[in-house]
Amino acid sequence: MLYAACDIGGTNTQAALIDNQGKISLSIKRPTRQESAKALLDGAERILAELFETGGTDPAGLSGLGVGVAGVIDAVTGSVIYAPNLPLKNIQVTARLAKRFGVPVILENDSTMAMLGETSFGAGKGAKNIAMMTIGTGIGGGFLCDGKPVRGARGAAGEIGHMVIDINGPKCRCGRQGCLEALAAGPAIAARARAILIKTPEPGYLMRLTGGDPKKITGEMVAKAAADGDPAAIRVMEETGRFIAAGCANIINLFDPQKVILGGGVMEGGELLLASVRRALKETRLTSAFKADDIVPAALGNQAGLAGAAALFGQR
Amino acid sequence: MLYAACDIGGTNTQAALIDNQGKISLSIKRPTRQESAKALLDGAERILAELFETGGTDPAGLSGLGVGVAGVIDAVTGSVIYAPNLPLKNIQVTARLAKRFGVPVILENDSTMAMLGETSFGAGKGAKNIAMMTIGTGIGGGFLCDGKPVRGARGAAGEIGHMVIDINGPKCRCGRQGCLEALAAGPAIAARARAILIKTPEPGYLMRLTGGDPKKITGEMVAKAAADGDPAAIRVMEETGRFIAAGCANIINLFDPQKVILGGGVMEGGELLLASVRRALKETRLTSAFKADDIVPAALGNQAGLAGAAALFGQR
Repeated sequence: MLYAACDIGGTNTQAALIDNQGKISLSIKRPTRQESAKALLDGAERILAELFETGGTDPAGLSGLGVGVAGVIDAVTGSVIYAPNLPLKNIQVTARLAKRFGVPVILENDSTMAMLGETSFGAGKGAKNIAMMTIGTGIGGGFLCDGKPVRGARGAAGEIGHMVIDINGPKCRCGRQGCLEALAAGPAIAARARAILIKTPEPGYLMRLTGGDPKKITGEMVAKAAADGDPAAIRVMEETGRFIAAGCANIINLFDPQKVILGGGVMEGGELLLASVRRALKETRLTSAFKADDIVPAALGNQAGLAGAAALFGQR
Repeated sequence: MLYAACDIGGTNTQAALIDNQGKISLSIKRPTRQESAKALLDGAERILAELFETGGTDPAGLSGLGVGVAGVIDAVTGSVIYAPNLPLKNIQVTARLAKRFGVPVILENDSTMAMLGETSFGAGKGAKNIAMMTIGTGIGGGFLCDGKPVRGARGAAGEIGHMVIDINGPKCRCGRQGCLEALAAGPAIAARARAILIKTPEPGYLMRLTGGDPKKITGEMVAKAAADGDPAAIRVMEETGRFIAAGCANIINLFDPQKVILGGGVMEGGELLLASVRRALKETRLTSAFKADDIVPAALGNQAGLAGAAALFGQR
């Protein structure tokens, strides 16, 4: 059985051909057209047409096309209700693509699709209760409970980044204070490192990475400097690990998952961060028998969502 | 169809006869025997025997017996794995009661059973995605996702009270800091009111309720004083409402439920507290379209668990 996947993100749209083991035989990536819903969907169609042409694949022969969108979706009608970073509001997606390519289409939230990829073919393979947290520019996530993805009443479940863990903490872009995202996503890591550099502007390694301008600091620079042994960067990453561990502990106490999978750009090459999350979790009393080593890194990187498209068709 | 229920709590064990609409025709309450697992289970058997005798009911004619225990349970083996306030550790429960009374027995966590009672017959009737939060001496809860209770990998899900919302907040009995329970359960409410009274020992209404000794204050006194218009008590209850709303908002962003049901002793007669939770939630940006009025009070009081026993048999 061969499937196609289309993962529509705020910056890029990825498309791929995948088998029922989640193995990707061909994938392409193009910028997401942001001008309008029509431009975005026309663009997605073109990317898929290019994929099928390159692969010499007749889409009508596929077992299904899974489409992931970074937004709130209505699985029943196959519509995107709302997407914070895309020009999609109450837009029907599945019928249009099904008609164009003559293939069954399932629409899913992109984080849920990535979670399904990891739980079907990656770091959570075989488990029925999993939480996944994706830490990048924002923090997202998804839950598998008793083998089924948690979508909630309106398809808006899984917003792990907007769980407040510090009610008096820094303001989040969502309007609340002390959301996990405002403490542990890339921009928050950069902001905390920047504050340290501005207070102690000694020409250390992290400062050199920024070219001498603390304003130019990014989360990636902090991660790199920490990996290379810079003390200030290590301090910031350890604090980040404690915040992520607090978020994980909350999720463990609420869902009692077998594993918590950590993915996203901030975790990539993040041995040090993973170790500090585990260390902080070891010192945390949990209500379940979850072990710190059950915090595991994602295995499929930014292709988890594409692999997850194949799992979607087994799910429903 | 007639069912029996047995709800084993840290203080009392309740038993009841219920129909398949969750209607209780007879219920009795006796102290829970705490000396040993044997004493506790012998006691539960005696309470059930008394129930059947009083009701003139042949237990072998019942459609099922649902047993709720305040602890981590293994639904598959029908055992209590661990119960923080009961002498039960890896104790098989269902086979013993099934043999004694000749009736099918299902064991469930008490909070999950109460949640099933409210979602089947009470404040969440008809909804498939519900969160319930029970606020008393501690804070517990349960989730219904897509029509199924969330139990987690080890039956330990739903520990809403041990979700940290203030990472620098007061120490919780679980060992973490700033758990919802450490901020909004009965003892936390009493502690905050006590701190105010000690600082401003004017002979106000709340102080009179304590007989002039701030140490004697309880959560119930604070609730009563707030209802009667005492300004210090109102301040404490409004702050409590903000903490509960923060917890609700986290749960809404994670699960996207249709409703959040608030129950437990602290909520009883708590018009003022419910209003302040809703007010705080109105000012909170949520990722889902949840409305403040979807925070609703529990309808079945401390009989939700007993009613839930009937729902258990429909669930599995």
